[in-house]
Amino acid sequence: MSLYSEFFYSKEINDLFSDKQAIAFMLETEAALARAQAQNSLFPVDLAEIISKSCRTELIDIDKLKSEISLGGNAAIPLVHQLTRIVKTQNFEASKYVHFGATSQDIIDTATVLSIKKYIDWLEIKLEELSKMLLMLCQKYRNTPMIGRTLLQQAKPITFGLKAAGWFSGIEECSEQLKDLKKRLLKIQMAGAVGAGNASISKEIQIDTAQILGISSANSWQSIRGSFSEWAAFLGILSGNLGKMAKDISLLMQTEVAEVFEGAAAGKGGSSTMPHKRNPVTCAAILANSTRIPGLVASMLSSMLQEHERSAGLWHAEWETLNDIMLLTAGSVEKANDLIKNLEVDANRMASNLELTNGLIYAENVSLALSEKIGKVQAHEYVEKACKTAISQKKHLLEVLLEQKTELPDLEKYFQANYSLGSAYRVIDEILQKYSTNLNPKP
Amino acid sequence: MSLYSEFFYSKEINDLFSDKQAIAFMLETEAALARAQAQNSLFPVDLAEIISKSCRTELIDIDKLKSEISLGGNAAIPLVHQLTRIVKTQNFEASKYVHFGATSQDIIDTATVLSIKKYIDWLEIKLEELSKMLLMLCQKYRNTPMIGRTLLQQAKPITFGLKAAGWFSGIEECSEQLKDLKKRLLKIQMAGAVGAGNASISKEIQIDTAQILGISSANSWQSIRGSFSEWAAFLGILSGNLGKMAKDISLLMQTEVAEVFEGAAAGKGGSSTMPHKRNPVTCAAILANSTRIPGLVASMLSSMLQEHERSAGLWHAEWETLNDIMLLTAGSVEKANDLIKNLEVDANRMASNLELTNGLIYAENVSLALSEKIGKVQAHEYVEKACKTAISQKKHLLEVLLEQKTELPDLEKYFQANYSLGSAYRVIDEILQKYSTNLNPKP
Amino acid sequence: MSLYSEFFYSKEINDLFSDKQAIAFMLETEAALARAQAQNSLFPVDLAEIISKSCRTELIDIDKLKSEISLGGNAAIPLVHQLTRIVKTQNFEASKYVHFGATSQDIIDTATVLSIKKYIDWLEIKLEELSKMLLMLCQKYRNTPMIGRTLLQQAKPITFGLKAAGWFSGIEECSEQLKDLKKRLLKIQMAGAVGAGNASISKEIQIDTAQILGISSANSWQSIRGSFSEWAAFLGILSGNLGKMAKDISLLMQTEVAEVFEGAAAGKGGSSTMPHKRNPVTCAAILANSTRIPGLVASMLSSMLQEHERSAGLWHAEWETLNDIMLLTAGSVEKANDLIKNLEVDANRMASNLELTNGLIYAENVSLALSEKIGKVQAHEYVEKACKTAISQKKHLLEVLLEQKTELPDLEKYFQANYSLGSAYRVIDEILQKYSTNLNPKP
Amino acid sequence: MSLYSEFFYSKEINDLFSDKQAIAFMLETEAALARAQAQNSLFPVDLAEIISKSCRTELIDIDKLKSEISLGGNAAIPLVHQLTRIVKTQNFEASKYVHFGATSQDIIDTATVLSIKKYIDWLEIKLEELSKMLLMLCQKYRNTPMIGRTLLQQAKPITFGLKAAGWFSGIEECSEQLKDLKKRLLKIQMAGAVGAGNASISKEIQIDTAQILGISSANSWQSIRGSFSEWAAFLGILSGNLGKMAKDISLLMQTEVAEVFEGAAAGKGGSSTMPHKRNPVTCAAILANSTRIPGLVASMLSSMLQEHERSAGLWHAEWETLNDIMLLTAGSVEKANDLIKNLEVDANRMASNLELTNGLIYAENVSLALSEKIGKVQAHEYVEKACKTAISQKKHLLEVLLEQKTELPDLEKYFQANYSLGSAYRVIDEILQKYSTNLNPKP
Repeated sequence: MSLYSEFFYSKEINDLFSDKQAIAFMLETEAALARAQAQNSLFPVDLAEIISKSCRTELIDIDKLKSEISLGGNAAIPLVHQLTRIVKTQNFEASKYVHFGATSQDIIDTATVLSIKKYIDWLEIKLEELSKMLLMLCQKYRNTPMIGRTLLQQAKPITFGLKAAGWFSGIEECSEQLKDLKKRLLKIQMAGAVGAGNASISKEIQIDTAQILGISSANSWQSIRGSFSEWAAFLGILSGNLGKMAKDISLLMQTEVAEVFEGAAAGKGGSSTMPHKRNPVTCAAILANSTRIPGLVASMLSSMLQEHERSAGLWHAEWETLNDIMLLTAGSVEKANDLIKNLEVDANRMASNLELTNGLIYAENVSLALSEKIGKVQAHEYVEKACKTAISQKKHLLEVLLEQKTELPDLEKYFQANYSLGSAYRVIDEILQKYSTNLNPKP
Repeated sequence: MSLYSEFFYSKEINDLFSDKQAIAFMLETEAALARAQAQNSLFPVDLAEIISKSCRTELIDIDKLKSEISLGGNAAIPLVHQLTRIVKTQNFEASKYVHFGATSQDIIDTATVLSIKKYIDWLEIKLEELSKMLLMLCQKYRNTPMIGRTLLQQAKPITFGLKAAGWFSGIEECSEQLKDLKKRLLKIQMAGAVGAGNASISKEIQIDTAQILGISSANSWQSIRGSFSEWAAFLGILSGNLGKMAKDISLLMQTEVAEVFEGAAAGKGGSSTMPHKRNPVTCAAILANSTRIPGLVASMLSSMLQEHERSAGLWHAEWETLNDIMLLTAGSVEKANDLIKNLEVDANRMASNLELTNGLIYAENVSLALSEKIGKVQAHEYVEKACKTAISQKKHLLEVLLEQKTELPDLEKYFQANYSLGSAYRVIDEILQKYSTNLNPKP
Repeated sequence: MSLYSEFFYSKEINDLFSDKQAIAFMLETEAALARAQAQNSLFPVDLAEIISKSCRTELIDIDKLKSEISLGGNAAIPLVHQLTRIVKTQNFEASKYVHFGATSQDIIDTATVLSIKKYIDWLEIKLEELSKMLLMLCQKYRNTPMIGRTLLQQAKPITFGLKAAGWFSGIEECSEQLKDLKKRLLKIQMAGAVGAGNASISKEIQIDTAQILGISSANSWQSIRGSFSEWAAFLGILSGNLGKMAKDISLLMQTEVAEVFEGAAAGKGGSSTMPHKRNPVTCAAILANSTRIPGLVASMLSSMLQEHERSAGLWHAEWETLNDIMLLTAGSVEKANDLIKNLEVDANRMASNLELTNGLIYAENVSLALSEKIGKVQAHEYVEKACKTAISQKKHLLEVLLEQKTELPDLEKYFQANYSLGSAYRVIDEILQKYSTNLNPKP
Repeated sequence: MSLYSEFFYSKEINDLFSDKQAIAFMLETEAALARAQAQNSLFPVDLAEIISKSCRTELIDIDKLKSEISLGGNAAIPLVHQLTRIVKTQNFEASKYVHFGATSQDIIDTATVLSIKKYIDWLEIKLEELSKMLLMLCQKYRNTPMIGRTLLQQAKPITFGLKAAGWFSGIEECSEQLKDLKKRLLKIQMAGAVGAGNASISKEIQIDTAQILGISSANSWQSIRGSFSEWAAFLGILSGNLGKMAKDISLLMQTEVAEVFEGAAAGKGGSSTMPHKRNPVTCAAILANSTRIPGLVASMLSSMLQEHERSAGLWHAEWETLNDIMLLTAGSVEKANDLIKNLEVDANRMASNLELTNGLIYAENVSLALSEKIGKVQAHEYVEKACKTAISQKKHLLEVLLEQKTELPDLEKYFQANYSLGSAYRVIDEILQKYSTNLNPKP
């Protein structure tokens, strides 16, 4: 992460993945397990309390833990050693029940799920904010015509509201997907050495531990890793949608297009050598993240082929990969919120860009109208020819068509941006109506 | 695909992605559009009928179409040309309404969705069969002890039924995910040149076309590609789960392990130079596919950053990539069904392998029992020491512990495979009960 | 490949990877092995001749072969069966020596190397043609000013020749890399069942077989796969360079930029609904390929972890993946050659686009000149302020600076495109001189 | 990196990529540029000295720098601001010449190259050590027979020396590749705002700066990124080779195989619940890294399509990705060195495992010998049948063949491991001879 910890990332979420917080989630799991075991009469409740109270990160020597990982092979082993010693200084009897019957993976996987849970809490708020802002963009620019572009060529008019509606639909689909996957994702891992459970990790204890932690109960998924891959892929898709938004905006910011801009800030986007530039710095960060995440998702999928009851290497490959995906996506989400919040739109430039082709972008309007008379192919060819004339003679297409006495009444009407925008308005209105409660926060 | 069209793939599904079938889905879309437009009074119903009846693949010159794609840039453009000419030979008036108001992407994306729909129909049947067979494996081997292995080391006993239950849970999770994503996936693309719709593609026409095709209506997703990425990622996860199964089986087939085998068939898995070998040929195919798919999913995610209203390149990158993912996954699903159907299990070898460590795999049983008396860490250390003695003196651990007068009554009981398998049985029984209807097909 | 066999691919190279050709390379390997064994007195030369003459693809039943692959697990096993039967019909004695001592992987890997060798022959010619055309572009547009763009913003002037020089340098670096890697790549695999060789595959026979095939000798690399990954990565880098070229051109073709265009052809790049459009169809194909290849290269790298002497799955994962990478890259190379050959350049538009910012792109010239007087930071700030004034008052920067009585003589000179292009010319001239022989074909 | 900074990584190399060191390399570049400019009379040498002496990381406020990156978009912009201020406090005139004519990318790319240079210095030493240890393994175990395994099945004997020779060849090929790519990789980036150079960055200054930094001169590669991708891919291949080694060793460590082991260390590889286990912890770390790197290499390749003279996002995507690849590979290299250094080999177990199949692994010997008499296919079938008899009757294959009065003299000789190992010895001897100087360090 290093130098770029604030450029690509979200400070708030960076903290959620700090060493200290990672240990806190593991300790939270150990504490919950001890309590659940005491609830189920494996040992007296006061011993569980002693364990729970010892589960504090400030008691852990993190540097020692990190250096011991190379021997043990994961973070839970040295952590349990330290925790046991801490508890023993208080109560020898209690120390017998630290991590009782659990395996390292139980603690590490559950801790990861706890971090995901917190992450989702944050993400849902941010996505709702983003959705709301995109809706407001739809509303505000419902009637602002701009050119629609396909294969990077000017095609036909849309409105900026419709473009925002497209962005919104991507985020909205992600919100739905998130709801669906949570039920498969936020589950405990507590299944003992080979996933079969044991006397200390009975079904009841598993259920109670899960309840204490606020996640759902589950049988072993120690080497069945679909839920983490689904989560990773979801973040990849979300990042893809955010990247698409950033791509559009960075293209719209081009000097030659200049229709939409990242919000300005003192010192922002300046070049060290070109004082006049206004670089799409926020877009660049989002685009970079979106470029990096697909490869990381592939690593998660590659890691699914875990041997037998616990893998030698593939489980380990997940740890930092999943964190990186979460960290990068959080950065993109936060930056996308900033981006949309401060977006500057130049409706005048949009309007003037609509005139760049001398009416060629309206050719389809004419073509469609004509095709009812002379057939689609013929109309297409007729208009194509007229377009070529317009280009070679540097005339407006309307002028050419009038000169050629094209047999269509009211030719001018086909050359207005909003002529064929009826469906665009309807699409936006549908969305606005459907999500109107989002736009009008309750008092 | 070439030489290996039957090795990595499913013949049935290969056909679904043939050139001819790809064209058939596009023609089906054109026909449905024409009908829906006629229903909405854009033109007389009999013209739509003429168009519909012309939408037959045998009328299309596929070689011509393929060579024209390089000019047009996609398959819809030359197809519409051919179709229009065909219709024109029958009725000039009707030819005006071929592909009326639609854009190439409308046809191509919708055709892809139609192929996915057929694919899902096939997949759901195959996954149900696979689930059922895995359940039967759970049931049959509920009580068959084998060693559980972590980090490729013998760890503690499980039963083969529990291992099968793990495989089952992966497939079951995928079936759930499939249900969730279908609602986002099986939707029409019918939005015109820049996704704004137009007079010929009104909301009503979009809805009616979708209904004729048996998919749901949707606003433009021409450059919002989350649903295809979600689908690709799902197939990646399914392949990951199948790959995990194949990985386990290939490891269990190792000469030195020899617990489980791919079914034998005349000539199958033979080596050209080693007449005695029994290669995990089916596993190898599944594993190969699982190795290839993650990179393809990454390509789909990378393709999401599509510029403006239609991308120059990224949309195109999806076409064959998504097909490849579907084809490879279908191969894996079909092969996994074969694999499980014909699986041979050697329960005796499982039993004898449990004895390979001279009782070391039961060390945790002793350790846990002891820890209640002397504390976890102390117990761990005591047993670890005893294990070392057993190893260096080549004795059975039970013997060593007895010699050391370990203070635990009934030491022998800890050295039986089913001593700590209680939860394993419970996990399997839970699953068998929950899915019992799957096991007992209705009369 | 299917429908898009001509859009993304090269017809010529497609043929090199046909079923028939794949079999031909395997038969060529078997023939060479038999000859080398006879040369080394393993059996009479006339038996080797009988085998060699039977190694003809037209004798092979390809459909039968494909369906038997599922049993044997690779293409060599059923091929050897068929070949042996064919030889036996001619000479029973000879049939004993078909595939004598070799293993399937020997034949398959060597056949792949033979296909790569042919591919490289083709590639070297195509890359030389491309390099030559890029050099000619450098030469022709050495003095044609255009704006240089960073982060999609107009920055400072370059010439179009300099941009072409950049593209050239990427291709040239690839040509160098290709020379380096060939020595590691074009080597025989002929090492027997477990890579240890055997009496029928002695070192001498290995060397002689390699010589007959025109490749180098090598010890077993049956599970050491670096050379194929290096080759795959090289093609990925080449595709990346071609993709960069296509990206630039597609951006320059934007309606709002319109400086450079794919060559026009009847029917090319037309949209089915917008008769006026000129889509970057060739760029789109190259960009699609460049988007797909990185994931495929990742699959090759993932496949390197091959177990023991031959992998169960990872070797198999290479087969089609490597072919796909070669096929897609060949398509990109061929299309890039077309693209550059037919490129249209609008120098006038380049010139007028240089004036879009009202002189802001020349701000650095002023800033640098000023910094010698007042320091870099001060100069930067002074000019930045002047730029803001120019923007807000919609004036030319030169005008603003003159009004502010900026203390720099000859202010006008800083506002000419070629003012700071000295190094650009020098860079181009250096390249042109170094590669001048490429530009002047020998008579 | 976090908790696992010592598990997956190399401490030494972690330091090379610390924030502080990253800044040091940028400052080194600024200092060299100033000196080269003074050498070329752009300004007095003493001003360059003042700049150079200010280029000290301890003067930089790193936290401030990190938070300013979000505005500027890269690390060079805020660094130059700080550096200029530092110089100004000492000499106003000198401050004019800080970063004179350079662009951010010049500094960042060159600093990356400097870090790569140091990394390669370290890597070459480590790879030489590793090669030497692998050679010693070849030598020591030249004659130690073990079973060769293909598709995870016992196949035919090899020696452990031959397996080590395979590992060695992978590393050796990487060393060669490294030599080849260095010439394309270790080059300066110093080309100004749009890669065209300028008066302050003349060709001479570029050459002199490169010389001061100990790297080669080069024209702009600001958006031609092949050299970084080649480097990334090389590290991916190296990691693949190391992963193959770790895969083999982890499989050989299986309880059921038990032929080779990671060196033991107090507390190493212990399971928290199974005191007897000896987990392949080092292998797991290497395997995890090898699983993660392919996706990262794909990201590098995806990043090559950089727009125009500097990309908005793709250049940024390289930064941390390339570092991650270097960091993970360094971890794998260091861990592989430990692994091989401390490897424990159980030759007795290798010998006894050769007997597991009751002679079936020697079937090919018999088959080959027989085929000279009765033809390959017939011999194959004869022996295959005998193998089946041996299996079903649980007899040794030799016994069966003798009972069947197989017409081959000295049948016993075919059932000895070293019968067909002649080429194995030759392969090893060739390698040992070729690299003998590596084995005999100079006095």
